[in-house]
Amino acid sequence: MEALKNYFNKLFPLTEAAWQDFEQCLVKETVVKKDLILEEGQKCDFIAFVGEGICRFYYVKEGEEKITAFFFSGDFVTNYRSFLTGQPSEHYIECMQQSVIYKVFKKDLLQLYDQHQCIERLGRLIAENLYLTVARRLDSFLYATPEERYQELLQRNSKLLQEVPQYMLASYLGVKPETLSRIRARK
Amino acid sequence: MEALKNYFNKLFPLTEAAWQDFEQCLVKETVVKKDLILEEGQKCDFIAFVGEGICRFYYVKEGEEKITAFFFSGDFVTNYRSFLTGQPSEHYIECMQQSVIYKVFKKDLLQLYDQHQCIERLGRLIAENLYLTVARRLDSFLYATPEERYQELLQRNSKLLQEVPQYMLASYLGVKPETLSRIRARK
Repeated sequence: MEALKNYFNKLFPLTEAAWQDFEQCLVKETVVKKDLILEEGQKCDFIAFVGEGICRFYYVKEGEEKITAFFFSGDFVTNYRSFLTGQPSEHYIECMQQSVIYKVFKKDLLQLYDQHQCIERLGRLIAENLYLTVARRLDSFLYATPEERYQELLQRNSKLLQEVPQYMLASYLGVKPETLSRIRARK
Repeated sequence: MEALKNYFNKLFPLTEAAWQDFEQCLVKETVVKKDLILEEGQKCDFIAFVGEGICRFYYVKEGEEKITAFFFSGDFVTNYRSFLTGQPSEHYIECMQQSVIYKVFKKDLLQLYDQHQCIERLGRLIAENLYLTVARRLDSFLYATPEERYQELLQRNSKLLQEVPQYMLASYLGVKPETLSRIRARK
C-alpha cells in the first residue's frame, strides 16, 4: 500500500482526503501461482496494482500462447483497452508466482474521479504514461531487432531473467527459443 | 470552432466558463500546402485541432520519408510523445493542403487543467482515446495484413483515396506502390 502511495506521490500527490477515499476502494487479493485474474471473453472491470509477484499478459492463437507483456511488482496490471471500452478481453492475465494485488474497480474509480480532481489528474497522467508505453512498444516492433528488444527488457527489469522461463521470454520477443539462446550467448 | 466544441461535447461537455477560457487559448493558423507545422528536432509544445485540411506525420530514414499517420479535418494533430515528454520530435508534420488549425499550447493547457476539472477530464478522455488509437495501430502491425490495413483506412476516411497520392498511401501501409495497386485492383 505504501508502494502505491509513493507511486502516486511521484506522479501527483493526492490530498489526504482523496487518498483515504481511494484506499477504501482498494481490494487486496492474494493470488496463487498460475491463477488467472482475467480470462479471454471477460470484460476487464479493474485496474490492479502489483504489490508482489509477476503477471503475464497473453493471448492464444492456434493453440499457442503469445505473451505480449509482463507486469512486475510496482506496475499496474489490467487489460486497459477492455477496461476503457467495455469490450471483452482477447487476453488472459496469469500470475506467475504467488502475488499480492490491489484492485480498484471501474465503477469506484469513476466515482473517485467525480469526487476528487487530484484523482482525475492521476487518471490523466496514468493514461498518458500508458500511451507512452504502448507507443514505445510499437516503435520497438517497427524499428528494433529482437536483440535490442531483449536489451530493453533487461534494462527494465533484470530480475526477470531469473524468474521467467526462457520459452516465455522468447514468446515475448517474438523469436524462437534457440534464437534467444544465441542472443544470450553473445552477451 | 463549432466542430471542436461538438467534439468536446461528445466526450464530456464543458461548462460555459471552461469553454470560454479554453477558446481564449486557441490560436487559429492558416497553413499553406506543404508547410511544416513541426520539424524533426523541435519540441512539440502544442496540440492542434484540424478545422480543414489533411496533415501527414512522417519521419525520414536513410533519405526516405516514412509516413506513420494521416490527420483529417476533425482530428487532433500533435506529436503527443514529444508533447508529453518534452523530448525533441523524431517526426515532421506537414499540411498536405491549405489547412486551418487551432493550436493550444502546453503551458496554457496545463493552466486550464488547474482551473477547470471538466478540462482535466477531457484531457484524461483524450489521452485514453489516443492510447486506444496507438494500441490498435500496434495490433494492426502485429496481426493484420496490408490488405486489412488498407480496408481499415478506407473505413476511417474514404475521402483519403482521392486526396492522398498513391505512393504516400503505400508508405503508410508499409508496402511498395505496386503492391498497393494490386490490392486496389482486387477490390
